[in-house]
Formats: sequence, structure tokens, C-alpha cells
Amino acid sequence: MKKNFFEDTFVNSNKEFIETVLDSGTFKIERIVSNSYSSPKDFWYDQSLNEFVLLLKGSAKILFDNGEITELSPGDYLLIPAHKKHRIEETDKNQKTFWLTVHYT
Amino acid sequence: MKKNFFEDTFVNSNKEFIETVLDSGTFKIERIVSNSYSSPKDFWYDQSLNEFVLLLKGSAKILFDNGEITELSPGDYLLIPAHKKHRIEETDKNQKTFWLTVHYT
Repeated sequence: MKKNFFEDTFVNSNKEFIETVLDSGTFKIERIVSNSYSSPKDFWYDQSLNEFVLLLKGSAKILFDNGEITELSPGDYLLIPAHKKHRIEETDKNQKTFWLTVHYT
Repeated sequence: MKKNFFEDTFVNSNKEFIETVLDSGTFKIERIVSNSYSSPKDFWYDQSLNEFVLLLKGSAKILFDNGEITELSPGDYLLIPAHKKHRIEETDKNQKTFWLTVHYT
């Protein structure tokens, strides 16, 4: 019945591993694993939904299109409003990074 | 803009510390901190909402009313459907236990 967020997961640095943990119809909880990942060059997320982001393990830097960089350590969370452009500048190079995200309207 | 889930939080063993991290109207994300907590004797949660539970730090045992006990370690998560009666049998005695929960219809 229980599952574990930190289950060992194969993922290389080309793309993120994304698993839907719960989709209620009005919001979606995802489990994301990154392995020394960066968003592709010149790519910006421009999402139609709001996003709650919690970094659980590892570390990451998120760049926003106003030039602001937010560094995330375990336990750090933030809200990224819909259409706030951002990209993953980098994630931890020495261990996998585990995220929980919630997308919602 | 960012906050941290593991922020040091005063809580004694009498009750849980509960903070609403996000209330969208259709679901609510809570940050819960327990310090060697057990539900009161003979108390059972009987919730009108579904609950997603993720244990982030520490450990816990949840007892269901069919007698089943689920032990939770960091990263363990489960869904507790509405009206599935359960109680916190115990949480870690040596460190605080941090939970993320999402209540939803």
C-alpha cells in the first residue's frame, strides 16, 4: 500500500524522470528525479498551471526570466505561478535530486 | 520566496504542529511536525476528505481499524481514502517527524 519517493530510479542527464503519484482531476502530484540535469539551452517553462515545488533530496538552481536564481536545498519549497517563466539551471552533480511537485489551476 | 519544510519548529508530544502551506480551494497542502506523538487513547481519524501522506523525516506507525499497522520511514507515502479510520500509533522518539499531507475531495 505504501510506496517510497526515494526508490532507486534510473535516469540520465538528458531528461527528467517524471511519475504521476496522484491525479485527482483538479491537481496532480508528481515525483521527479533529476540526475545532473539542466533544461535544454534557451528553453523556458511557461506553464498554464500553478506549480508547488518541494525539493526533497539533492540540490538545484532555478533561473527565472527576470534573472533571479533560487537555490534549493532539501526541504526548500516554493510556488511558481502559472506563466512565470523559469528553467532548471542545474541539479546536483554528485547525487540524484528528488522533487515533489503539485500542478493545479 | 522559498521556505523550508524542515524549519525548526517547537512542538511537544501533546499535539501535532500543523501549518497550511497551500490552500487552493479544492485541496490543501499541510506541513505537520510531530514530536514523539501518538493520537489520544481510543481516538480514530474519520476524515471526510481523502488524504495523501508523505513522511519526510523521522518515522511513524499508523494503525488502521482493521488492525493493520503501516510503518513509515523517510520517503514513504500512501493514500488514505476518506472515512478509512486510522490513528497515529507513534512517531519517532529520538527526533521530530516531518510530514507533508494533501487533503482533497
